[in-house]
Amino acid sequence: MERFNRSFDFDWRLYGADIQGSVAYAKALARAGIITAEERDLLIEGLSRVRAEFECGTFQPAPGDEDIHTGVERRLQELIGPVAGKLHTGRSRNDQVVTDIRLYLMEHLDRLDGLLTDLQEAIVEQAEAHLDLLMPGYTHLQRAQPVRFSHWLLSTFWMFQRDWERLRDARHRMAVCPLGSGALAGHSLGIDREFLARELGFRAISENSIDGVSDRDFILEVLSGGAILGIHLSRLAEDLILYASAEFGFVELSEAYSTGSSLMPQKKNPDSAELMRGKAGRLVGNLVSLLVTAKGLPSAYDKDLQEDKEPLFDTLNTLELMLPVAAEMIRTLRVHPDRMRAALEDSMLATDLADYLVRKGIPFRQAHHLVGQVVRYGIEEGKALRDLSLAEWQRFSPLFEADVADVLDFERSVEQKDSPGGTARSAVEAQIARARELMAS
Amino acid sequence: MERFNRSFDFDWRLYGADIQGSVAYAKALARAGIITAEERDLLIEGLSRVRAEFECGTFQPAPGDEDIHTGVERRLQELIGPVAGKLHTGRSRNDQVVTDIRLYLMEHLDRLDGLLTDLQEAIVEQAEAHLDLLMPGYTHLQRAQPVRFSHWLLSTFWMFQRDWERLRDARHRMAVCPLGSGALAGHSLGIDREFLARELGFRAISENSIDGVSDRDFILEVLSGGAILGIHLSRLAEDLILYASAEFGFVELSEAYSTGSSLMPQKKNPDSAELMRGKAGRLVGNLVSLLVTAKGLPSAYDKDLQEDKEPLFDTLNTLELMLPVAAEMIRTLRVHPDRMRAALEDSMLATDLADYLVRKGIPFRQAHHLVGQVVRYGIEEGKALRDLSLAEWQRFSPLFEADVADVLDFERSVEQKDSPGGTARSAVEAQIARARELMAS
Amino acid sequence: MERFNRSFDFDWRLYGADIQGSVAYAKALARAGIITAEERDLLIEGLSRVRAEFECGTFQPAPGDEDIHTGVERRLQELIGPVAGKLHTGRSRNDQVVTDIRLYLMEHLDRLDGLLTDLQEAIVEQAEAHLDLLMPGYTHLQRAQPVRFSHWLLSTFWMFQRDWERLRDARHRMAVCPLGSGALAGHSLGIDREFLARELGFRAISENSIDGVSDRDFILEVLSGGAILGIHLSRLAEDLILYASAEFGFVELSEAYSTGSSLMPQKKNPDSAELMRGKAGRLVGNLVSLLVTAKGLPSAYDKDLQEDKEPLFDTLNTLELMLPVAAEMIRTLRVHPDRMRAALEDSMLATDLADYLVRKGIPFRQAHHLVGQVVRYGIEEGKALRDLSLAEWQRFSPLFEADVADVLDFERSVEQKDSPGGTARSAVEAQIARARELMAS
Amino acid sequence: MERFNRSFDFDWRLYGADIQGSVAYAKALARAGIITAEERDLLIEGLSRVRAEFECGTFQPAPGDEDIHTGVERRLQELIGPVAGKLHTGRSRNDQVVTDIRLYLMEHLDRLDGLLTDLQEAIVEQAEAHLDLLMPGYTHLQRAQPVRFSHWLLSTFWMFQRDWERLRDARHRMAVCPLGSGALAGHSLGIDREFLARELGFRAISENSIDGVSDRDFILEVLSGGAILGIHLSRLAEDLILYASAEFGFVELSEAYSTGSSLMPQKKNPDSAELMRGKAGRLVGNLVSLLVTAKGLPSAYDKDLQEDKEPLFDTLNTLELMLPVAAEMIRTLRVHPDRMRAALEDSMLATDLADYLVRKGIPFRQAHHLVGQVVRYGIEEGKALRDLSLAEWQRFSPLFEADVADVLDFERSVEQKDSPGGTARSAVEAQIARARELMAS
Repeated sequence: MERFNRSFDFDWRLYGADIQGSVAYAKALARAGIITAEERDLLIEGLSRVRAEFECGTFQPAPGDEDIHTGVERRLQELIGPVAGKLHTGRSRNDQVVTDIRLYLMEHLDRLDGLLTDLQEAIVEQAEAHLDLLMPGYTHLQRAQPVRFSHWLLSTFWMFQRDWERLRDARHRMAVCPLGSGALAGHSLGIDREFLARELGFRAISENSIDGVSDRDFILEVLSGGAILGIHLSRLAEDLILYASAEFGFVELSEAYSTGSSLMPQKKNPDSAELMRGKAGRLVGNLVSLLVTAKGLPSAYDKDLQEDKEPLFDTLNTLELMLPVAAEMIRTLRVHPDRMRAALEDSMLATDLADYLVRKGIPFRQAHHLVGQVVRYGIEEGKALRDLSLAEWQRFSPLFEADVADVLDFERSVEQKDSPGGTARSAVEAQIARARELMAS
Repeated sequence: MERFNRSFDFDWRLYGADIQGSVAYAKALARAGIITAEERDLLIEGLSRVRAEFECGTFQPAPGDEDIHTGVERRLQELIGPVAGKLHTGRSRNDQVVTDIRLYLMEHLDRLDGLLTDLQEAIVEQAEAHLDLLMPGYTHLQRAQPVRFSHWLLSTFWMFQRDWERLRDARHRMAVCPLGSGALAGHSLGIDREFLARELGFRAISENSIDGVSDRDFILEVLSGGAILGIHLSRLAEDLILYASAEFGFVELSEAYSTGSSLMPQKKNPDSAELMRGKAGRLVGNLVSLLVTAKGLPSAYDKDLQEDKEPLFDTLNTLELMLPVAAEMIRTLRVHPDRMRAALEDSMLATDLADYLVRKGIPFRQAHHLVGQVVRYGIEEGKALRDLSLAEWQRFSPLFEADVADVLDFERSVEQKDSPGGTARSAVEAQIARARELMAS
Repeated sequence: MERFNRSFDFDWRLYGADIQGSVAYAKALARAGIITAEERDLLIEGLSRVRAEFECGTFQPAPGDEDIHTGVERRLQELIGPVAGKLHTGRSRNDQVVTDIRLYLMEHLDRLDGLLTDLQEAIVEQAEAHLDLLMPGYTHLQRAQPVRFSHWLLSTFWMFQRDWERLRDARHRMAVCPLGSGALAGHSLGIDREFLARELGFRAISENSIDGVSDRDFILEVLSGGAILGIHLSRLAEDLILYASAEFGFVELSEAYSTGSSLMPQKKNPDSAELMRGKAGRLVGNLVSLLVTAKGLPSAYDKDLQEDKEPLFDTLNTLELMLPVAAEMIRTLRVHPDRMRAALEDSMLATDLADYLVRKGIPFRQAHHLVGQVVRYGIEEGKALRDLSLAEWQRFSPLFEADVADVLDFERSVEQKDSPGGTARSAVEAQIARARELMAS
Repeated sequence: MERFNRSFDFDWRLYGADIQGSVAYAKALARAGIITAEERDLLIEGLSRVRAEFECGTFQPAPGDEDIHTGVERRLQELIGPVAGKLHTGRSRNDQVVTDIRLYLMEHLDRLDGLLTDLQEAIVEQAEAHLDLLMPGYTHLQRAQPVRFSHWLLSTFWMFQRDWERLRDARHRMAVCPLGSGALAGHSLGIDREFLARELGFRAISENSIDGVSDRDFILEVLSGGAILGIHLSRLAEDLILYASAEFGFVELSEAYSTGSSLMPQKKNPDSAELMRGKAGRLVGNLVSLLVTAKGLPSAYDKDLQEDKEPLFDTLNTLELMLPVAAEMIRTLRVHPDRMRAALEDSMLATDLADYLVRKGIPFRQAHHLVGQVVRYGIEEGKALRDLSLAEWQRFSPLFEADVADVLDFERSVEQKDSPGGTARSAVEAQIARARELMAS
């Protein structure tokens, strides 16, 4: 039962946040006249000694330390004596623990912020390095239209940009201080909650003490943001795994991010990408885990909420492992321009041919239909479109003229997609400029 | 297979958004010189006729209408002839469908916004109506400290406030126009994407055409916000079910929101609250559904994404049903002040007694311990705390003086929790003022 | 609220089961002497008239029909008068509804049984039709070792075999009759529960009336089996989508199971396979939905349990749509032997070379290492293994002799994997025989 | 990246299974003439030394030990030299790892089997100890009909019985040996797979080598069984938390399974039950985690599958912690017969009154309606049913006679529910006998 109940084994991670919260609380107690300035200083000094023990790895948990809060308080008592007993005045573990998690999480979100930006930086760098590389763009995993490699790569930039914004929003929403909510009803000792909030870097105080000890939305929101980010990483990974296969052959992961086989040296298993794809599972699982735990709970604090920490810690750890791997995987990616180019086929220009007819005044649906006939003819005759004679073209429509040959050019096709967000060089350059602007801000 | 592939049966809901998007697109085509002003007007008029058919329920789907887009286009063709074939110039179903869902969803989020506010309004009204009602506050479903009924009720206001903010953030993030992304590579016809965005009420255009057709984050974000909102409703429902039980007896749901039994008329099953608790399941299920679908997909458009709509529609329908029921359930709630008052026990004032000692200079931990002894003594002697003599109090500490009797007062206990967010009348009034301010803005 | 509470709109599907249950119940009432034989016959006749109305589509729901049970009872009353009021004697909606779902589900599981077997039949047929076709076997989506196409295809047979067994186990476990549990406490009218069970095709009666009305495990078990089956279909679909891409080119889906594009006729989007992959999402979502709903409920019947039906109906509908599509997709699959053969590379025989050395007495790890060196040498020299001279081989080990050439044979490699479950022709034939045996039983 | 890729930190748990598998494999290699009897003995002896190091905690992982398999092989090599390199002949990590997990899991399922039975034993013991205790049975958390406490308690026995059966089925299905599947294509060295299966306690061999290395159904099935078991525990926990509240007051958890508060000694927080309810979350989360990971994977082995272990280990650990706590919580539960009895109300006998009229020939629906009027009358007059005069009864129906008083008896009501599965003493005794029979078999 003790093992069942005990959370110290995982919640010790909160020690920094717990001590930070207690230092601020000691100051607030002194301001409210509940302890003296000397007591405050003694408490603060004792707390920094406890922190130092954690940081040096010398903190010795005692059997009775059921969680980080009792562990820190017990040790503080040993170090500074009975005055330690004043630190809990008007504070409950209920408001303490939720303050700790918020502080811990705000710090980790700042870390994720940097890791996301670094991944985005890697994407932009690779995009810049291969601006003129064309490849097939796919829909339904079928070759559809030619695109720039950099355009494909940058498409992932915007996924991560939304992740970044979502996690920033979550951080903003969580920066609300519940300390001073007591067990559930508030406190009666005149402690200045606004002071506590400022001292701990929160932007506001919570507005209702029952909600203050009960609310775990901020964790759910991060777990949800983490799950969506995991889905994004899984999609990027899927593309990389495909493109790194012998059949596609567009890219090659560097040795550091793949496992060679000493038996089959040609084999480079994209392990890092596969794990990145696979770990989407645990990120979704962690989200579901807390949603299920929270479902149907009565208000205020219930012990069930102790189950909020492990999924959170796992999601943070997982993301802090995945993002740097993703960034380096991108950064060290080798590309095979020849294989990409070889995968371009004339039929991928069918839309361009339809646009050619549209410009000559035919309704799109009809143009679409005509070009379809030409392409089918080519397939039946076993000829690439560029090998059809003008006469053959004109069999389908007199609007096909000599200049149809100009259309059969992958570069040209790509360059015509020059509206914002398109795959033309100018549009991609504008996209990169916009991306750099966002990263800088 | 046709049935397997066909989405018309559920995506017809998008007709309004689809036609709205097409009207704007017709205007953009004319601005780009691709169609004439007459053709534009003809298209727009035809589209409004199709819309009218949907609104009057006279639209007749044809067997070949595999989705709403082909249905509308087919009907438009019947109504206005071949010029209908020009509407798709440079547009693909890939960018069309995702534009439609965004438009549809933005409208529904505005509706949810109103429904949430109405629920919050009901909460605030009930809180105002029962400002002086005391009840036990619970932690671990054990009686902990007295709180105002209105304070408990308002604790749910803040959950819904966060939901509201989360959905507003999601709406902001989704208000980005992907139209003009083409199949995946952008378009080449000089259509003004900024114009399209303005015309359709978007705040910006999407920055990358591949991401434009591939991104379903905005749906995931709403499904996630919906799941969290569902968890909130399940927690409120759990409290109501408990409080409406014979054992608690604090509240009674109105007839309209419970099912009596003609056999046991005293029995009022809180069906509406139970369904509200139960429906958290489908809201979480819908989120998981799309996370799983999106996991591991390659970039750009894959047919799998057709599976994005049903969970979204179900989440929106469910919330649009649940929120008004929740609001009316709160609004029509009857309370039983006597039962609440009867559930208050002296031992719920133990923290107040400890604070009494703390104010006399004893460290909290020690005060806490002393009061514990008194309470235990009371239990053993079978006496309520208010029935102990001063001598008995002083057996535990000489600091207990005659004024200890003043502490044994539920009103006083509640009134002392007067810091912001606490359960004192003044704090609750301030809370209500803040709530009204937020609703007004 | 009425709309919120009402389940008729989806639970009308249970009409057949509901009426079947009522017919059996009428017989049991007569056997217990609670109604006369005439009343029984009248009830049974009335019930068949109600059933006929459902089957002919002439049943008219009334506004007060909140669920299928009240709908049937109301109509029965209209048809046969007050004796209808006797049908509910000793029966509660709580035991009635759960009996209905079990009956409904048992019937649908029998249908799924047949659909799974038909899919397996399609797999075996295709495997038999292409016994001599070799293709690369992949791990990590990298070419690993040559395998028979039929061996790959049969690997999916065994997934579906486990699904079949799992759903059969679930069916066995659910074939327990809860009728006679009353509202929750049992009944007091001497109705013979064993008779009811036999009459309705159950193998046993439930052992505890509270559990009888509360248990939804049998639905969870089917939703779980459905989710796992969905994952299997998603994996098969992923392989098909890959193999149907231009880059792999191993297979082609028939027109009926892909969408051509009139513009790009070479493009055959594998829509059916994509939807099959995507629908794994809703199957997992449905499972999660009911797990969340059931979590933390008190025992016996709670209205939350009304939420059990829609995920169940959706999972059954989805599977009943997916399985025939999967079977036909397999049955009509066209294969490209040349593309498969062209994808085989000498380096995929590296393990065979190591085994060659092992047979000459070298420890496997060392053999493995030696062959690795040869393969790397081949890559550096730009030579296929079959183009190395004996001298070159012997540079790495004198144990390589002229017969090493025999090893460089894909057929031989495959034929050597002749232990049970391996990819040799004999092993695959044995596998097919075993598969046919299982399907027959 | 190394940290990202490495699984040793969690998969070391498999050491016992890994070594067991290798010992059997060494025997099989010798039988196939690939190694000598001496080499076999040397390998086996070396492997037991490695196992001993794990068991004594002296095994030193090396930096290169990326997983348990390489760790064991590396250490074996150090202990017995190059012959260790022969152990991997014809075996791949792909078939090795999946064999290991099956062995590990079969052992843990046997442990869970015992833990479940012990929980069931505790339930039956408590049921036997309180056979004559009546309490309100609830539906919708409203008092419905009187039931025996033991009947309520036993209702949980059957949930756990189904869990037990489900996990037994899963164990049966998983007892299939994949060893000999090689990397994916089978092996070519004449190793006797049937021998391996027998040696390791499997009931059969896998039928297809690609499926053999790819199949993780057996884990999904256990995670699903674990999630359903978690839901069951959450429901039992919910009842206990309710019944232990001051408002219900039916039961009291022993000190060991609740947390007292030194401040409020009357407060006994049911922490163990709350955690039991909360941990349903992680059990569902673990299931979802692997479903998501597996979704959309291509066939055979992909590195993503490394993510199968942590959710499995967590589910097993969690259940192995929860079940003994649940058993002891039940075993040490104190009951308050007076509080249960006090919660019984006459109106809970309404169904019995209706049955009384039915026995006098009135259709149930009409009887139901009549009794409803009486109960409503009692409420309006403020009288318990037992306080109504015969004249008052007869105002509603002349069929009410003096013997109606006999019906107003909770014991009698309970005793009349004497059909199988009902709450009468005889039926409960039969239920216990059946439960004991199942536990014994």
